[in-house]
Amino acid sequence: MTSRPVVAILTDFGVEDTFVGQMKGVILSQCPNAALIDLTHSVPAQDILAGAFHVGAAWHWLPEGTIHVCVVDPGVGSERRAIAVQAAGHTFLSPDNGLLSALMQRHRVDAAFDISGFVPESAYVSRTFHGRDLFAQVAGRLAAGARLDELGNVIDPDELIRIDLPEPEVSPNSILGEIIMIDHWGNAITNISSTVLGGPDENWAVECGDARTDHLSSSYADAAVGGIVAVVSSMDTVEIAVRDASAASRYDLQRGMPVTLTRLS
Amino acid sequence: MTSRPVVAILTDFGVEDTFVGQMKGVILSQCPNAALIDLTHSVPAQDILAGAFHVGAAWHWLPEGTIHVCVVDPGVGSERRAIAVQAAGHTFLSPDNGLLSALMQRHRVDAAFDISGFVPESAYVSRTFHGRDLFAQVAGRLAAGARLDELGNVIDPDELIRIDLPEPEVSPNSILGEIIMIDHWGNAITNISSTVLGGPDENWAVECGDARTDHLSSSYADAAVGGIVAVVSSMDTVEIAVRDASAASRYDLQRGMPVTLTRLS
Amino acid sequence: MTSRPVVAILTDFGVEDTFVGQMKGVILSQCPNAALIDLTHSVPAQDILAGAFHVGAAWHWLPEGTIHVCVVDPGVGSERRAIAVQAAGHTFLSPDNGLLSALMQRHRVDAAFDISGFVPESAYVSRTFHGRDLFAQVAGRLAAGARLDELGNVIDPDELIRIDLPEPEVSPNSILGEIIMIDHWGNAITNISSTVLGGPDENWAVECGDARTDHLSSSYADAAVGGIVAVVSSMDTVEIAVRDASAASRYDLQRGMPVTLTRLS
Repeated sequence: MTSRPVVAILTDFGVEDTFVGQMKGVILSQCPNAALIDLTHSVPAQDILAGAFHVGAAWHWLPEGTIHVCVVDPGVGSERRAIAVQAAGHTFLSPDNGLLSALMQRHRVDAAFDISGFVPESAYVSRTFHGRDLFAQVAGRLAAGARLDELGNVIDPDELIRIDLPEPEVSPNSILGEIIMIDHWGNAITNISSTVLGGPDENWAVECGDARTDHLSSSYADAAVGGIVAVVSSMDTVEIAVRDASAASRYDLQRGMPVTLTRLS
Repeated sequence: MTSRPVVAILTDFGVEDTFVGQMKGVILSQCPNAALIDLTHSVPAQDILAGAFHVGAAWHWLPEGTIHVCVVDPGVGSERRAIAVQAAGHTFLSPDNGLLSALMQRHRVDAAFDISGFVPESAYVSRTFHGRDLFAQVAGRLAAGARLDELGNVIDPDELIRIDLPEPEVSPNSILGEIIMIDHWGNAITNISSTVLGGPDENWAVECGDARTDHLSSSYADAAVGGIVAVVSSMDTVEIAVRDASAASRYDLQRGMPVTLTRLS
Repeated sequence: MTSRPVVAILTDFGVEDTFVGQMKGVILSQCPNAALIDLTHSVPAQDILAGAFHVGAAWHWLPEGTIHVCVVDPGVGSERRAIAVQAAGHTFLSPDNGLLSALMQRHRVDAAFDISGFVPESAYVSRTFHGRDLFAQVAGRLAAGARLDELGNVIDPDELIRIDLPEPEVSPNSILGEIIMIDHWGNAITNISSTVLGGPDENWAVECGDARTDHLSSSYADAAVGGIVAVVSSMDTVEIAVRDASAASRYDLQRGMPVTLTRLS
């Protein structure tokens, strides 16, 4: 095991343009040995809530010490702060707009820094592309060994902006949640995490619009091809799927639709 | 030349979500020095045949010793096996569902292993995302120097599931094949490999639906702009193209359509 | 700082197929230690002008010494030359079709080489995929330490093919330019660079079709949500945007549309 630094990048920049490539160039200019991982660049444009969900779901699978560059930044160029957050052994760079909310909801912030005033040595900071001109520059410096207290100012974690994430309503025999994401296969990911479901012997009926199933399964393969199946997904929340097809298309499922779980007797 | 391990990843996961990034995080957690290559993540969802074709076409261009993580896995969570196959100096990790069929059709399997029972040291194995929880974990261990006989059990290569790949019917003066893929430019890739075409002096008329040309060319540039051209493509099979345009759109070509070659006198 | 070689790749190959992965395999076969960066693979098919713009906008952000593999190559297999160009401390590999025009318009070519005759040691050169069979092979050799004069022949930079890039017409009180690109967010990027705008105290009204604003702003955030804003973008040219929405959709903006700037008194 070497100490090769890992930088993970998550944006709403898409891959049609060279924006992400420019960010990577800046990072490797500072730290040629960094390993770069694209988490996704398909966060819907300026959709902080969707970005927050992706950050919260993915960070855990990166190596300890990973530097996460998270940029969904409708307020770039305004007075919004740029921040660095240390939590759970990782470092997260982000605009201070709630993009780290899902992470911070579950994990204590060990230290937070305002990096808004960082000025790279050999480049200017545009007012339209902080992903490249500020966040990638700071990530490269951190990867090369700089410390955050050299690049920014300590701030109180309680000052960080957090956005409300939809939380399920949990009653003894029912849970009311919602769809928070449709994934690549058309599976509907909900905000109902496994922790509110009770033990493995419990079972639940699941209903969302016309999508209904009378039990939770443990894998997609428990359904026949074309059949509906609800599972606790790899993101550890209830997910509604159709085996070998798109549940979203079949049942016209969309983000925000309510999902009801009813405990089976 | 160093011995830096290369891990190539091919899935039907798309890039809208963070699934592939999570897999890369798992691999780099085990082996920070690994070089990661995305072959493609755009295999049509759960389309094992299309995936098999891509694996067969691409693997040869990766460095010797590459670890290939191939995941098109409609049966995840079922009793289907997870396998590791050594062939042609490369290692392939895959569900045992035929995804390696094109590779195995042309190359002898030197050794095969059942890795279904592998349990990573510090994580659980979900029943919905073996790409991350099993295949990436095994890839990372192999990249870090583990041997397959430490991670799985030897099995008989003849037991591996193979799917029928469409094969051309070859007569003395004609060949009947089919379109197996439409590529990014709208070129129609067929299953008619150069080996059944005879020597370089032979020539053939090519017909598929309304797309017809009375000879094989050696490059796209042999046609005028907008003209139809049939070539032996970079995948070493006959391909129908339109210079600087999409043959698929022009002639409504689709996967599975029959393609006839007629030997010219 | 190590001397890890960086290879940046820009193509019109898309990511649905394994073409780019095959190129990366070839590069790492020659130089396992190379760092690979995707600039973009979404250049519209065979659109040399769009590719030239992307090359010109992005190269500066890569580390000094980067090897750029630029492949938008409608003439592959014809007599068009394959070239290597050294400029501004970087090396660019490309078909000789104008793809480097934006770069060469602004930067002196220090040396140019004809690499058309390069033959890799252990592979053939197809007539349909020079991205893999020639450009990636040469990039790998360069990354591994070879010199261009070993791989090709010196040519006169004045012989290189250049395409006309649309240039703005600059009058004392007005500038007539055009849209050269719509980016991922629907921002309209023009060819009017900051250098023709005068000092920071100057201001301009901007008009393109139904999109009109009476001043240049310094960031998107200067507009209200949903409001039109014109800024000097991160590419250092005037850009028309709508805050938190797509200017292209709102005003039906397309590449090639004229953009008029009028100096404010």
